[in-house]
Amino acid sequence: MTITITTFERSPDGGKGLARDMRVRWALEEVGQPYGIRLVSFSAMKEPAHLGFHPFGQIPTYEEGDLALFETGAIILHIGERHAGLLPKDAKSRARAITWMFAAVNTVEPPILELVTAKILEADKPWSKERLPLVQDRIRNRLDQLSARLGNADWLDGPFSAGDLMMVHVLLRLRPSGILGEFPNLSAYVARGEARPAYKRAFAAQLAINDPSHDVGG
Amino acid sequence: MTITITTFERSPDGGKGLARDMRVRWALEEVGQPYGIRLVSFSAMKEPAHLGFHPFGQIPTYEEGDLALFETGAIILHIGERHAGLLPKDAKSRARAITWMFAAVNTVEPPILELVTAKILEADKPWSKERLPLVQDRIRNRLDQLSARLGNADWLDGPFSAGDLMMVHVLLRLRPSGILGEFPNLSAYVARGEARPAYKRAFAAQLAINDPSHDVGG
Repeated sequence: MTITITTFERSPDGGKGLARDMRVRWALEEVGQPYGIRLVSFSAMKEPAHLGFHPFGQIPTYEEGDLALFETGAIILHIGERHAGLLPKDAKSRARAITWMFAAVNTVEPPILELVTAKILEADKPWSKERLPLVQDRIRNRLDQLSARLGNADWLDGPFSAGDLMMVHVLLRLRPSGILGEFPNLSAYVARGEARPAYKRAFAAQLAINDPSHDVGG
Repeated sequence: MTITITTFERSPDGGKGLARDMRVRWALEEVGQPYGIRLVSFSAMKEPAHLGFHPFGQIPTYEEGDLALFETGAIILHIGERHAGLLPKDAKSRARAITWMFAAVNTVEPPILELVTAKILEADKPWSKERLPLVQDRIRNRLDQLSARLGNADWLDGPFSAGDLMMVHVLLRLRPSGILGEFPNLSAYVARGEARPAYKRAFAAQLAINDPSHDVGG
């Protein structure tokens, strides 16, 4: 069954791979499933046709026959349940991997989104400069805890799983801020994610769309 | 197998049922599974014993034999997979219900958490009063979209599911702000959730701990 995902017609990050379609691309590469893409412009994202797929007017969406999903967590869980490579077979290990998927999007990502909001939507406000350190410190609190749990392990709970995929990508969004670099074990963890062949294929695929100049010469 | 969850020794909301243990209590009531609780104080939440169960030092956690989970989304998904009453049997409907679970915690809850942060952690800042309307408008944007999708339906996608359970509880946290009341269909949706017998049993159980005066006479 053909899989189609939606991505930005042109990602605001210019090809850094920080948009959420990367999570789905990476997951599909990990399990070896081909997929097609449909590009969506910023204006089309807010029109009824796209809102039918994604009620909050975002990307990515996922279509597979008559199944239509949104939310990267749900999409990746669906992929992981149908194909080997993202979720452990043992039921308890699997429940713990799913725990890390939720931790990534519900506990670690929200303060990171606050920083994005502060930098983009509130950059011109009079409080912007004074408030930013508070937002950054809330992120550091979470990363302190995550760093303590990860310790010297390669991945969060045994072998690489969808939980690591989600967490690595959530953390990647922090790299431009410099905060990720303050946590050596988390930086190394993210680098391990980026070194996976599946990640590299997914990254190259989004780069070819978002910064076509990188295609020159192959 | 005995199920044990952790909850606040005394919830900061004084028994309004807004803390996240309500989600797990409600889910366990929906599927008819008994559970025990272990109360955790604010200081104990940050100590190694609790951090072993929850690396971010929060409640609730979930223990069942040698399985230990955190993150309400993961806990409720685990419960829903093992017991009838929270997830549809049909695979596609089930994937869509899980989509709404993630939408609740990753798309609708983050701006609501921002409001909590603004009101509690930044209440004494010079920008607090001027900034609050911006935070509130970001919530309204999301609720506009959610309201449009729900329309006149009782639940988000067919019969009540774990997706509705998560979304109703996320929205409940907004009621004290008055914003939920601006959206009649979402207010009615939340009221439908609260009217479920399982919700009422869960609410009463947390109230007995958090505001014992309510126990007098009954």
